[in-house]
Amino acid sequence: MASEKCFAKGSSAPGLVAKGQIRLYSMRFCPFAHRTRLVLHAKGIKHDTVNINLKDKPEWFLKKNPLGLVPTLETSSGQVIYESPITCDYLDEVYTDKKLLPADPFQKAQQKMMLENFSKVTPYFYKIPMGKKNGEDISVLEGELKEKFVKLNEDLVNKKSKFFGGNAITMIDYMMWPWFERLEIFELKHCLDGTPELKKWTEHMSEDQTVKATMFPTETYKAFYKTYADGKPNYDYGL
Amino acid sequence: MASEKCFAKGSSAPGLVAKGQIRLYSMRFCPFAHRTRLVLHAKGIKHDTVNINLKDKPEWFLKKNPLGLVPTLETSSGQVIYESPITCDYLDEVYTDKKLLPADPFQKAQQKMMLENFSKVTPYFYKIPMGKKNGEDISVLEGELKEKFVKLNEDLVNKKSKFFGGNAITMIDYMMWPWFERLEIFELKHCLDGTPELKKWTEHMSEDQTVKATMFPTETYKAFYKTYADGKPNYDYGL
Repeated sequence: MASEKCFAKGSSAPGLVAKGQIRLYSMRFCPFAHRTRLVLHAKGIKHDTVNINLKDKPEWFLKKNPLGLVPTLETSSGQVIYESPITCDYLDEVYTDKKLLPADPFQKAQQKMMLENFSKVTPYFYKIPMGKKNGEDISVLEGELKEKFVKLNEDLVNKKSKFFGGNAITMIDYMMWPWFERLEIFELKHCLDGTPELKKWTEHMSEDQTVKATMFPTETYKAFYKTYADGKPNYDYGL
Repeated sequence: MASEKCFAKGSSAPGLVAKGQIRLYSMRFCPFAHRTRLVLHAKGIKHDTVNINLKDKPEWFLKKNPLGLVPTLETSSGQVIYESPITCDYLDEVYTDKKLLPADPFQKAQQKMMLENFSKVTPYFYKIPMGKKNGEDISVLEGELKEKFVKLNEDLVNKKSKFFGGNAITMIDYMMWPWFERLEIFELKHCLDGTPELKKWTEHMSEDQTVKATMFPTETYKAFYKTYADGKPNYDYGL
């Protein structure tokens, strides 16, 4: 896990990426960067991590990636890759050990369709906490999120499998996990009450070595998200 | 090119997909389905096309794809694939002749990043015509679209190549083309005035056999989009 304090505007750029390694530009608590952290760990890829202050981005980082997004990967030859699913697919293609995406084109397409579907779930993890903070009625949003969980639950029931791509963890499980790890922090755990198979999936996921190794304690998340909601994110919380 | 009238609610389902073929569920004028039509043609894939009435979708189609989206692919074994980039990647993986995506993982990642970037361009092709129709000032939107074209132009200048993936057409060119084919119809051709390399790209693309074979005459597009803007899309216009 990244243990380095974040780089902000005005900082000097970190050294070159070592030969035979890859670098992840990350923010320790970002769920999108979490996807890439999971894949790097699951595949045992040698890498270093440079954390970025997302509120006050270093000039040298914006030169590498003008969009200023995390996750961003950089290779030792200076190739730059961003957008979380693109970084994860790239890693799975270049590092052929422990493949996370299925080789079969239809199964791969199924994972991509599940991911596209899941892209309609993640916005709720922003909208619900923000709505709460602003004292709005979030019951409609919660209802919509629960409906999406019902569909995910049905999918597991139909597949009769422990994970979304079969009985072992594959790419799609890691793509969805970061938001489920944050359910408790956003006080959304009760949304799993009507979806027992999905709940079981979260329990199976929690037992995975990679999930354990990239996880933060709930208290750390809560403390970080408090600083975030207050408009003064402490990206180095707990270091 | 599809030549069959569209299937609407209440219609009987078409026959099974023939062995050794694949079926495209499409709407003749849909730019997203156009992507898949381009890939099917460029790779010379044996297929049939079933056009869907998107305003009044057949029940049997919603059973195959509850989202009711085109493009959707169906194989002879009943596998269903949707979302335009997913259908195109699937075709490129299954049909290995005339590969459209590069084999190199970084080059592939670059195509995916360009595609992600382009997903911020396509909404203007909806927002600008709708704004015009409603008598709104669309100069800000047009300015934003032009800025995006400037970035695409810079990309071609930096690459010193005829197409976005090199000197031959690759997947990313076909993914972007359908919207450029519709520039004239939406009265947006002047947006290319400040971007000569991008304009040249549209000219090179127009010479491609696949682009020619899947194109509709401007007058046909104009007539269709008029019925669409009036809320009564004539999906069978010109048949």
